[in-house]
Amino acid sequence: MQIGIIGLGLMGGSFALALKERYEEVEIIGYDHNDQHCIEALELGLVDKITDDLEDFENLDLILLAIPVDAILNIIPHLNSISNKTTIIDFGSTKSLIVDSIPKSIRENFVPAHPMTGTEKSGPSSAISNLYRGKVVVLCNIQDSGEIQRRLAKKIFSDLGMKIFYMDAIEHDRHAAFISHMPHALSYALANSVMKQENPKAILALAGGGFKDMSRIAKSSPNMWEDIFRQNKNNLLEAIFSFKEELEQCEEMIKAGDWKALHKWMEKANSLHEIL
Amino acid sequence: MQIGIIGLGLMGGSFALALKERYEEVEIIGYDHNDQHCIEALELGLVDKITDDLEDFENLDLILLAIPVDAILNIIPHLNSISNKTTIIDFGSTKSLIVDSIPKSIRENFVPAHPMTGTEKSGPSSAISNLYRGKVVVLCNIQDSGEIQRRLAKKIFSDLGMKIFYMDAIEHDRHAAFISHMPHALSYALANSVMKQENPKAILALAGGGFKDMSRIAKSSPNMWEDIFRQNKNNLLEAIFSFKEELEQCEEMIKAGDWKALHKWMEKANSLHEIL
Repeated sequence: MQIGIIGLGLMGGSFALALKERYEEVEIIGYDHNDQHCIEALELGLVDKITDDLEDFENLDLILLAIPVDAILNIIPHLNSISNKTTIIDFGSTKSLIVDSIPKSIRENFVPAHPMTGTEKSGPSSAISNLYRGKVVVLCNIQDSGEIQRRLAKKIFSDLGMKIFYMDAIEHDRHAAFISHMPHALSYALANSVMKQENPKAILALAGGGFKDMSRIAKSSPNMWEDIFRQNKNNLLEAIFSFKEELEQCEEMIKAGDWKALHKWMEKANSLHEIL
Repeated sequence: MQIGIIGLGLMGGSFALALKERYEEVEIIGYDHNDQHCIEALELGLVDKITDDLEDFENLDLILLAIPVDAILNIIPHLNSISNKTTIIDFGSTKSLIVDSIPKSIRENFVPAHPMTGTEKSGPSSAISNLYRGKVVVLCNIQDSGEIQRRLAKKIFSDLGMKIFYMDAIEHDRHAAFISHMPHALSYALANSVMKQENPKAILALAGGGFKDMSRIAKSSPNMWEDIFRQNKNNLLEAIFSFKEELEQCEEMIKAGDWKALHKWMEKANSLHEIL
């Protein structure tokens, strides 16, 4: 199987490692606008070769787009002369704008996907072979993907041990705002609320597991998350609004000393873990 | 060494395990208002015996108070006839009200402490022997503790591999609001903001590591956290206010489409991890 990976960071690099671990015969060609990442990806054995010419991708079995969501929008027009047998999977964290931007001529090539996994790290050296194992991947609007493409994508994701969910891109973006995008906004805001205090070092010296968990994703790449926030603006604002309502309710109960109501509100939050 | 532990949950139970692992000759007497917890603690070998009479604690070397902060306030008056050689350590997550409530007659017995560790679990079965290893413990106002008591507390915490910080109770409560109490409010609010959506199950099915980390402490005990929020009300409200300012700034930048400023704001949040 000949595979092209565009974007050799955490997601693309980990996908390369997982494919190489799972399949005996894969050849992976890498593409990244960052030269240093290309060198590292070769050195780390994530890819077998590097190209800076997208024409080299035209007859591959699979192309993975593992780049920020705005970069996905920008690269799509350059894939227009791809073979009709090639499968293109994009790993964008937002889906509606991407799905809408795919030209009809290559729509069957595309399987829009969002793997619900990651770490706060980035770059080829952060790649790990088990990033995808046991994790959820959401496939969007695959009724518009070709038969070959659907089959290949499903086979690869199952082979890597992923749980496949199917969803409309619009629904995906609404859910992703709550489960991923808004929590990132909270983590960034939490980090900044501590950093602006008089002596953040004295406060951070006391950090236990709770704070470390809550602030971990505040380390995430602004390049990636600026794009996601832009592309999922309305859903994100709605999710932030919904969160603020809850936080303000908490605040009001504390101000009023309504501890009984606060206790119930905390119990309701506990119940999330019966589902999760 | 004879040790009494009041409160046989995660903190008290883990402390018992750690002491038994570290020292050859310790006898631990347990006390808990929950009979089931007493039975479990005995069965799990956390304690050597159980008592329901605080008089049994009067001549011990060490008494640990590992109960919710309001329960600490309630039990302090019952410790008034303790030997002047006994060391009392409380593990309350708030410190000012507790320090202020200790009668002068037993003030030297007390070493007010806050170990910055825990999990979202509770009860004797959640106890783990390495909960304290490598973690920070804050000792407050120990200039008012007796010489014997200071020495014993420091020795035990170092023996368990903890990093000791010294702090005024007022300063502690301000810092703890930012590093622990407010993040708990956020996690509860995040959980409730998802639970109130039309189909929380469909959203939660997509949960990746980020959401799991952010919502983990929303599983924490309302019994414990209602007390903490009450005792640290003003600092907590201030920390929530500071957080909301940041989140609202984020919201405004998204609404205005000021992506350049948003990018910078995210980068500032990244810088927390240079300290943490």
